[in-house]
Amino acid sequence: MAEKTSYNIGIEPQNVDYTLRERVSSLCNNILNVAGTDAQRKGFGVDVLGRKGHSWVLSRFAVEFDYRPEQFTSYDIATWISDYNRLMSTRNFTLTDGEGVEFGRAVSQWCMLDLATRQPLDMTTTADMHSQWMVDCPSPMERPRRVAAPSEEGATTFLHRVAYSDIDFNRHMNTLRYIDLMVDMLPIELFAEQRKIRMDINFLREARYGEVLTILCADRGNGEWLFEIRSGEHSVCLRAAFCFV
Amino acid sequence: MAEKTSYNIGIEPQNVDYTLRERVSSLCNNILNVAGTDAQRKGFGVDVLGRKGHSWVLSRFAVEFDYRPEQFTSYDIATWISDYNRLMSTRNFTLTDGEGVEFGRAVSQWCMLDLATRQPLDMTTTADMHSQWMVDCPSPMERPRRVAAPSEEGATTFLHRVAYSDIDFNRHMNTLRYIDLMVDMLPIELFAEQRKIRMDINFLREARYGEVLTILCADRGNGEWLFEIRSGEHSVCLRAAFCFV
Repeated sequence: MAEKTSYNIGIEPQNVDYTLRERVSSLCNNILNVAGTDAQRKGFGVDVLGRKGHSWVLSRFAVEFDYRPEQFTSYDIATWISDYNRLMSTRNFTLTDGEGVEFGRAVSQWCMLDLATRQPLDMTTTADMHSQWMVDCPSPMERPRRVAAPSEEGATTFLHRVAYSDIDFNRHMNTLRYIDLMVDMLPIELFAEQRKIRMDINFLREARYGEVLTILCADRGNGEWLFEIRSGEHSVCLRAAFCFV
Repeated sequence: MAEKTSYNIGIEPQNVDYTLRERVSSLCNNILNVAGTDAQRKGFGVDVLGRKGHSWVLSRFAVEFDYRPEQFTSYDIATWISDYNRLMSTRNFTLTDGEGVEFGRAVSQWCMLDLATRQPLDMTTTADMHSQWMVDCPSPMERPRRVAAPSEEGATTFLHRVAYSDIDFNRHMNTLRYIDLMVDMLPIELFAEQRKIRMDINFLREARYGEVLTILCADRGNGEWLFEIRSGEHSVCLRAAFCFV
């Protein structure tokens, strides 16, 4: 059995918002970078998979932050894969501040995709390379929930054309920018005070350079917000739920 | 006389574009972060100035990149202040890759602002704190040019409301996002090949949260592009010139 692996992260001025605390999108970006770096170091990153015509694709992602840490502080992200089945590999994270307090956690669920057919691969036959890295420790929070479509009635909408600065090496919209677009539709006052945040995202289809996205945002009351991002009229790219306590 | 100071920068996945090379906005962001860090370490950063009710404000900025470096490489940014006069302090930069090749350079010119009156201070009386840090080495490139207003005829325009994810600790639009907005209006093919880039920016007024910006982009031919970013109808926030060789 393998052990959890830890990565240290420093918070720079470009990572914080007007409260001098790290933005949610930056926290999530660091978590996903740790996933990529850890897979690469252990020999099952997108570099190795790419040579076989395969890739990891993020399917579901959930995070919880008890607070958002301040500029010029640093924290550790510990990560481990707890299990996988035919369709999904589950990678977990905990975030621990300089005082040793766990202030955040995340669960990500990944499919392995055949890049030629764009179909998911059966991981019980293809993912042997990562089976030695399983850690006997459960996910640190409730796994990502299935997010319902928001009701269009009363929802606010925002249009955005996927631009050069939004895309990654695949010319697909990157996750950081999806989160920024959604957070930008929330009342800015939500970030003025320290609140516990939970966010669940279901990724359904990648948005590509030049596509025009519609972001729907529905306020469900009690600090709950539902989002849907569509390309064109009907094609849903992702759904997300934010919860502020 | 002081010496130049050097900072090492690593390029992570979130810093690159679809060519796997660092985005211009990320290169500029690293340069400006080095300016902030270097001033802070030497005792004349915004932290110390803030206690006196003063702040540094970026007035003009020019960069040259011979090429854009690749993901997972690193480079050094050397920085030094060469001189100052009543109105402006000039901070210089060179960027050197792992092989020792200088591939980029920058010149930034800063005013010192009285935060209460929003008026520039006479630095010959207030900037003693940084006079011991002058380095006897000229700017490594032509200093930032004055940029002309683009002609409205034939210019393309883009509207953007300043959002939560665009703003810094002051609730002002950050420089990184200004550059992203401009670059996003250029043909994406400009970045497919390696080209030398020069960019000059004149900052005229800060854009604040919620303001609606109009970005004007004029193609002047021969790889030259002029930009103007306005808030509302007439108030100009910045002008910039990009030149691709």
